[in-house]
Amino acid sequence: MHPRRAEETPAPIGPAFENEPLGIIAAGGDLPRILAEGAVAAGFRPIVARFADGIGAGWADGLGARDFRWGEAGDAIAWFQSERVRRVVSGGTVSVRPDFRAVRPTWRTLQLLHHAIRIMRGGDDSVLKRTARFLEGRGFELVAVQDLAPQLLMPAGYLGRRVASPDERAALALAARAARTIGILDAGQAAVASQQRVIAMEGIEGTREMLQRVGDLAKRGRIGAREVCVLVKAVKPGQDRRFDLPSIGGATVREAAEAGIRGIGLTAGYGLVIGFEDLVAAADAADVFVVGVEPDDEQLAGEAP
Amino acid sequence: MHPRRAEETPAPIGPAFENEPLGIIAAGGDLPRILAEGAVAAGFRPIVARFADGIGAGWADGLGARDFRWGEAGDAIAWFQSERVRRVVSGGTVSVRPDFRAVRPTWRTLQLLHHAIRIMRGGDDSVLKRTARFLEGRGFELVAVQDLAPQLLMPAGYLGRRVASPDERAALALAARAARTIGILDAGQAAVASQQRVIAMEGIEGTREMLQRVGDLAKRGRIGAREVCVLVKAVKPGQDRRFDLPSIGGATVREAAEAGIRGIGLTAGYGLVIGFEDLVAAADAADVFVVGVEPDDEQLAGEAP
Repeated sequence: MHPRRAEETPAPIGPAFENEPLGIIAAGGDLPRILAEGAVAAGFRPIVARFADGIGAGWADGLGARDFRWGEAGDAIAWFQSERVRRVVSGGTVSVRPDFRAVRPTWRTLQLLHHAIRIMRGGDDSVLKRTARFLEGRGFELVAVQDLAPQLLMPAGYLGRRVASPDERAALALAARAARTIGILDAGQAAVASQQRVIAMEGIEGTREMLQRVGDLAKRGRIGAREVCVLVKAVKPGQDRRFDLPSIGGATVREAAEAGIRGIGLTAGYGLVIGFEDLVAAADAADVFVVGVEPDDEQLAGEAP
Repeated sequence: MHPRRAEETPAPIGPAFENEPLGIIAAGGDLPRILAEGAVAAGFRPIVARFADGIGAGWADGLGARDFRWGEAGDAIAWFQSERVRRVVSGGTVSVRPDFRAVRPTWRTLQLLHHAIRIMRGGDDSVLKRTARFLEGRGFELVAVQDLAPQLLMPAGYLGRRVASPDERAALALAARAARTIGILDAGQAAVASQQRVIAMEGIEGTREMLQRVGDLAKRGRIGAREVCVLVKAVKPGQDRRFDLPSIGGATVREAAEAGIRGIGLTAGYGLVIGFEDLVAAADAADVFVVGVEPDDEQLAGEAP
């Protein structure tokens, strides 16, 4: 199912010494499991700290994973240190923002409370990024998801059966322009456009709720019958490639199709596809096209080294 | 209540000859009445064609106004022509998009059907603009709202009692940047930001629904307790000043306050305030600041002549 030729996929990173421990901060969804499998395959010894939606994930049981509340971040760090973890990767979905009032920090976390508050301020999407930056400040080295699992990177061109019509290509171009433009604001990464106009731009509500909004607008007749809508998720200009790359999966395709969207674009070489087979099956089932679009020069000009 | 000094307000336009008829395309809200009063005060004879939300508006009864469904646009044009109307102004709110299936075009409109379909395609906000452009194509001259009623233009500086705190000024600056940036896309005109991040950007859903979204996000704890949110409506780069200038009124203030928003910025000299006294009373009652922000050079660089 995977359309990328083997020679195009860069090699994943490996351990610096035999059985090197790799800390994995695991939230929800398939990505943490993919990361742990990649770590094992590369020769790392995964040390899996499950947070938020990742707590209790069955796949990690054989790995001696431990569960932590956000208020126990200090304890997770102490565990990583006792296991001599030097490198850490994080990933997964966080569907509910940590409620600071319910955090009940432990003594170890209280020592870090100022930082912990900073981590929990702001939106859902940034909580993993803030956690990772915090770990970096504590001396850990951060590994990018795509360095451990380069096969997740979106290739250029189409996945699945469907290709875009001329109207859909026009919508794709406008949605890509909108997604890049709002990326300048460090707001969302996603936008929906038709061939005629920009329909919706992602703020802190996230891609899923933006898609629900588009579906609602369509149901209310606010989108013309001849308008073809396309979703684009794009890398932000100047984006740190270790964090928060735009990603899509089968659920994205199903949510988009539910909203009446005809196709999805994702920045090639930067966006992540979590679950190629599920995504392609969902796209073919819903007659939605999925395409990797080349990032333009403007977009990469400010890229972090 | 009006903070603008009299000498700063430009004079409104007047009739080219005694009793010149002025066509007014009147949708809902207070603006069409303000336009008709301005027309009478300037010496025009108003010819009021009421559409959509404007149908049956009581204030126009003394003016010999007529009601038209969207499908009767051709009849409105014939009426204007029979009254020797040369100049036309349009304004007001359109809360429900014309449903093309229910339009039942008249014979006169059928002659114009291709254009009528174009008018009714797309979002609510553009339907008046499309109607006006259509009239322009039929030989009418379009009068800008602010040329007939220049007292509606937003002055620089604060209206009402409240001024912005340092955090609120930071949110104002970011929201203004976001509103200008999405204006480049010819998407919405409005954005909400806190001092930390862009919260929401207006797509085709319109300002009211964007504000409801912000209120919903706040209720769900997705906006931090220390974040202060500010709404900005900004003129689009290259905007045709005759159409679709950003506007606010008392209802905008009440909807913003309901969403937990602390202040509102509007482009000075370009934005329109529909009902100064109601707006200032609503702002003072809700402890919301309202400020006219100077358009920056970038914003005006592409302005239509």
